[in-house]
Formats: sequence, C-alpha cells, structure tokens
Amino acid sequence: MGTEFLKIKELEEAIEIIEELFKNSYKNQSEEISLEESVHRVIFNDVEAKIDFPPFNRALKDGYAIKAEDSFKSSPQDPKSLKIIDSIEAGIYSSKTIEKGQAIEISTGAPIPEGSDAIAMVEHTERYGEHVNLLVGVTPNTDIAFKGSDIKKGDLILKKGNILSPGKIGALKAQGLEKIEVFKKPKIGIISTGNELVVDKKDFKFSKIYDVNSYSLKSAIQISGGEGEILAIVKDNYDELKEEIKKGLEKYDILLSSGGTSAGRGDILIEVLNDLGEVYIHGISIKPGKPTIVGKIDSKLVIGLPGNPVAALIVYSTLISPHVRKLSGLKESMKSKVKKFPLNSRLHSSKGRAQYFLVKIQDKKIYPIIKDSGAITSLAIADGYIKVPKEKELLEEGEMLRFYEF
Amino acid sequence: MGTEFLKIKELEEAIEIIEELFKNSYKNQSEEISLEESVHRVIFNDVEAKIDFPPFNRALKDGYAIKAEDSFKSSPQDPKSLKIIDSIEAGIYSSKTIEKGQAIEISTGAPIPEGSDAIAMVEHTERYGEHVNLLVGVTPNTDIAFKGSDIKKGDLILKKGNILSPGKIGALKAQGLEKIEVFKKPKIGIISTGNELVVDKKDFKFSKIYDVNSYSLKSAIQISGGEGEILAIVKDNYDELKEEIKKGLEKYDILLSSGGTSAGRGDILIEVLNDLGEVYIHGISIKPGKPTIVGKIDSKLVIGLPGNPVAALIVYSTLISPHVRKLSGLKESMKSKVKKFPLNSRLHSSKGRAQYFLVKIQDKKIYPIIKDSGAITSLAIADGYIKVPKEKELLEEGEMLRFYEF
Repeated sequence: MGTEFLKIKELEEAIEIIEELFKNSYKNQSEEISLEESVHRVIFNDVEAKIDFPPFNRALKDGYAIKAEDSFKSSPQDPKSLKIIDSIEAGIYSSKTIEKGQAIEISTGAPIPEGSDAIAMVEHTERYGEHVNLLVGVTPNTDIAFKGSDIKKGDLILKKGNILSPGKIGALKAQGLEKIEVFKKPKIGIISTGNELVVDKKDFKFSKIYDVNSYSLKSAIQISGGEGEILAIVKDNYDELKEEIKKGLEKYDILLSSGGTSAGRGDILIEVLNDLGEVYIHGISIKPGKPTIVGKIDSKLVIGLPGNPVAALIVYSTLISPHVRKLSGLKESMKSKVKKFPLNSRLHSSKGRAQYFLVKIQDKKIYPIIKDSGAITSLAIADGYIKVPKEKELLEEGEMLRFYEF
Repeated sequence: MGTEFLKIKELEEAIEIIEELFKNSYKNQSEEISLEESVHRVIFNDVEAKIDFPPFNRALKDGYAIKAEDSFKSSPQDPKSLKIIDSIEAGIYSSKTIEKGQAIEISTGAPIPEGSDAIAMVEHTERYGEHVNLLVGVTPNTDIAFKGSDIKKGDLILKKGNILSPGKIGALKAQGLEKIEVFKKPKIGIISTGNELVVDKKDFKFSKIYDVNSYSLKSAIQISGGEGEILAIVKDNYDELKEEIKKGLEKYDILLSSGGTSAGRGDILIEVLNDLGEVYIHGISIKPGKPTIVGKIDSKLVIGLPGNPVAALIVYSTLISPHVRKLSGLKESMKSKVKKFPLNSRLHSSKGRAQYFLVKIQDKKIYPIIKDSGAITSLAIADGYIKVPKEKELLEEGEMLRFYEF
C-alpha cells in the first residue's frame, strides 16, 4: 500500500501542463441549436443581417399617410383637407398610390403607401367622413422608419463570443432566424471508482457509502458550460476501469474519474493510462487534491480526481473548469463569481504547498471552514473557496482575499 | 384610433399594485425533482439528515487497525509486534474482533473492526509476513472518523431557500437522496398579438415582421427562474384573443401578452379583461412601457406588455421578473446583476415620467443607447439598462448609476 507519486508537480507547473494539454487536444466546436433554447449559450460565428430592418418603410405613429407638401401651410385655423382613399392596419398594405390631395389612414407598423412621404399623427387631425383635416404641417420623412434604417442586410448584428441574452435572442428573431450556431458544450463522462461506493438505497449496507462525486461534479460541469454524464461506479479493479474508460472514450470528449485517492487504488488508473495512453501528472503539490492524475489516451484527456468530495470539487473547479468554460466559448474565469472579502480570523496554512479552504461568506467576511477533509458538512455549508499560495503560512484577520463562488 | 388609458398609474403606484396582486394571487409551490438535475434550484423545505455520516466508524488512513494500548511503548528501537489476523479494504468489513496483540490491515474508508480503537498508519509500521511492527505509539481514536461525527441523523443539513450548488447537491447525495423538493417554477404562457407578426419564413411577406417578443420574453422568463412557453400569435381580434387567453388560463399560472401597444389594438385585451375579469392597470407613467396593462382573471394575472420589443423586455424585467424570481424561491433582485458604473456622457431624460435606457458597458462606463424605441439594434447591443427617476431631467457625465444586467 501507499501511493508513489511519480510525476508530482507544483501547482503552477500543473496549471501549465493542463493548459497545454487542452490546447493540443481540443479545439472549439460548434453546434446548431434552436434559438428558442439558446439563452446563455455563446455565438460561434459573427452573425450578419439577412434582411433589412425594418423590412419596409413603416409608420411610427397612428394617423394618415400623406404627401408632406400637402400639409405645409396647415394650421388649426386654416386646416388642409385631404380625401381618405384607403385605410391600412399593421400587417396589411394598400395597393393604392397617394396623389396630391389624398391621404390613407394608417396604423403604427403598417407599410407606408406609394406616393406618401410623411405621417400626420392622428392627434393633429380631425376626420370628417371621407375627409381628414390636417391641423399642423409636417416635414417630409416625419414618423417614418425607413427600410433598413435600423439594420441593413449584410450588417454585423452579433459577434462570435457574444453570450445570448434575451435582447440578443430577440434581435436574431427579428431576422427570422430559427436556429443559431453556438459553441458546442464539451461532453464529459464521469466515473467514480471505489468498492465502497453505492448509488441506490438497496445497496447501502455496512461498510458502504453513497457516491457523492458523480453528482457534485455533474452539476459543477453544468455550471462551467459543459455537459456531464454519470457513466458508472467502477470497483477498484483494473479490468473494469479499463473497460469503462475505453467505452467512455468513444462517446465523450473528456473523462473525469474520481476515487482511488489513497492506498494502491490510484495505481489502477495510472496503470490503465500507461497501458492505453500517457500519464502527464501524478500528484500535485496542493492541499487538498494531491492525488490528482492527468493523462491522455489518443487525443482525449482522462483526469483522475481525488475520491474525497471536497478535494474532487476543488480540483475540478480550479484546474479543469476554466478549460471547460473556454471550450464552451465562455471566458476562463467568471468574474462575477470572484469577489474580494476580508478574512474573519487568522488562518494557518500548510507550508510548501498551495492550500484551498472551503469558506462561508457572512456579513461580507470570509469564514474558512476548518474540518476533516472528508467532512460532508463542509460541502453543505460552503459558498465557495479561497486559495492560499504555497509561500504563505499565516494569514492575518482582515486580510483581503479572493473568494471563488461555487 | 388612439388609446385612452383609463387606469394610468405612476411607476411607484404600479409597483405596489403588482406586488399586491402577486401576493394575493399566488403562493410558493413545490415540486420534487431529480437531485441530478437540481443545480441552481431552490430548496423548499429544511432538510434533515436521514442517516449518520460517516455511517460507520471509518479509517482515515491506510494502515493497521489496532488496540491503541498495544502501541503505547512502541518506538523504532523497540517496536511492538502484532499478529495480522485479517485485511480489509474500503467497501468490505471484517467479522473478526481484534484481541490484544492483534491487528487488521485496513484501507482508508474501511470500517474499523470490533476491538480496535486506533489506526497505526502504514508509514509508521513495518510488515513481516503475518506480523506488523509498530514503530510509534498512537493514542486512542487516532485516524478514526466516528459514526455520525460529521452529521448526525436528524441534524439540519440544508435550509429552505438554499440554492443548490455542486457542494450542496453532494451533501444531499451523501444522504442517499435521489430526489429533492424545490420551489416550483411558475409556468408562464406567452401570447403575441398583432396582424403583422409572423414566425415562419413562409409567412414573411411585405407588411409583415417577425415576432420578437415571444423569444426574448421566453428567455427572460427562464433567467428569472420561471418556465415560459410560447402559446400563439393572435390576430388583432377580440374573439381570437379571448379564446387564446381562456385556453392559456387552464394551463399556466401567469399569462403574458404583448402587442397592441398603439391604436385601438390595446383595447382588445382591455375588453377581454373587463369581460372575463378585472383591469387593475391600464397605462404606466414610464418610458418606454406606457401601454402596459395588468389584469386578473379568476386568480391568475394576465399582463399586457407593449408590442415594442425594447419596451416589452424592460417592463418584464423591471415589473414582473422580481415576482417570478420570488415564486421560484429566489431573491427578488439578483445582486450580482446590479452594479454601479459612471455615465459616459450627459443624458437627457423625459420630464414627469421614469425613463429606462438600454445601455452598453464599456471600459466600466455606461453608454446609453439612444435610438428609436423600435430599433432592434438596441436589443443586440444592450448589456442591460438604467433607470432615471421621473424627477430627473438631466444626468451629468460621470454620475454613478445602477446598471441592471439582462
């Protein structure tokens, strides 16, 4: 028993190796999805307008489409009278052409009829049967939104990398789009290893515990823009793990295995990796999270996270999630989820390796949760985590630290 | 033509009326969902532990389960030798009881055997065949996580209102939970009205425009924690709208209709509301968004938003979304989405009514987007909006304003 970490790395080194591996193994891919379900997805290509907007000259007010020159000398004392030759609402158009002395009754949004170059708004008119009196003069182009005045066919509407908000989705729909090409979510297969792990109540017997990591990792993957799927719980057995990994590699972009954090168990994943591919990292000088493994089989990354749920979640969040975000088209870090707060009390950290602490935020202060690394309560309480660099052994009360929200 | 606003309200009044209506018409409801799909949902009831965690006395290290007193005088010079009577890995247990002078080889996570009260970690031992030499003394309880030491059956694990994060989901899974009771998302039916509106390319003819609001509202509803469904595009026709509303009321908690912002068209919704229920607001003194209608049929709210896409999105975001959030168990406002930035340039606002401006954030400054209220480009560009109170007519460059992100 006792794991030998043959390729143990400093945190900075590990970050670089992982970044390099992701860069060499993956490139951003796209998929076409329904615009209706696209909120918060990331646009893959610049989008150019396919049609003008407005698509036709459009009335901006309810009133009368006229020739502006017919109104020039109108006043309440000396109104100009025009003959109403048609009436159009939004969604219909008139095939008539307005001649001097004529008007067409028009609703907001309806197309301006031929021969008209202005709208006399209804509030500035008086109607008498088939005639309308203009009470004020209007200049040409008044209350007309011209075809293409907002967007011209070929204009750039949205850029690659834009995140689809309700407004941006609306703008695309105004173009008649039904689908949109967005960054594809990386598909991540999740495997938990351990003879002691069970999912169902019926298997929960003395010596067993419920598998936590599949669930916490799946939701962490979802938040970082990926699509996680729980594949299996694998016993501490070389053949079983190898089989599951081979199956997973066929369907998923990345495999996350957790468990085997101690004893000879981690060696099983190392063996499988050495057998089918290559090991790049075996052990990282961080706490918690030391028994992390990073390997590659063909062109796909297989990452072994610690079995300890706190460690697994922290390693995923700090080392893997930024790359999942990038593949999903998102920025590497989510700024709105990183804030600075003061530390509530002194904090001792381990010398010589970077240490992460789960923390709770209360009254805008950081409360580190000091518990056994196996404690599930920490997971229930924690709002996120802080990172203490390896040089630091003691943090003072009040020290401002970056808080990373889960 | 020309709409008469019979129940026009100041913004503050409208906010109060809408709040009162939501309070009287709805109460928070719950639904049980799969824990696996629960990320970012809100817990409906306090959750108590159903089992102890750890569920049994558990080894925290790889090594040997012993009686601590057997080790008391051990040292590298004078090691105590114990007979190894069994070996257990995580997930299995030994039915043997340790007597004085005996040890059981044990892996991290395995249950402590009867008779043992401490773990001698493997690094402090030497094994010789069926015997192990203890090189150091250990005190009772060393490296044992006791049953229930982290969580006791009956302990409060998570509280009503907690938002399910990866860690919290993990903590629930450690309890063996498969499902969790969360706040039910309010179901909102979306209707667009207007003869000029089309969805499909095949219907897009001269005088028609694509319906934008259904799409932008559906995604805005999703962001605020609700579940929007696009029901129909209804012509400006009393019977058709009435029919659609009656159908929608059977299935949805809230109906959002948009369109009919000008001309006599808004009157159709008013007529339907007067006929089937009651109108509470007909017109709000805001810009854009004046032609907003709020009514109630039986115990359900029917809200008429302006047809103008910018206005519809702003009215939903400012007046309706806080209540949808509340029904979904979320805080009324999303603090991380409200930030203060300085205004990039002077800004004139209309006198006598609150005005909202779509804005873009660049270099941490607010750039108001000054365009026709019908401009679709504003929707594509905008990151969110600012609000200028009715008393204000002029905002100076550099003035700090709250920015509301979409």
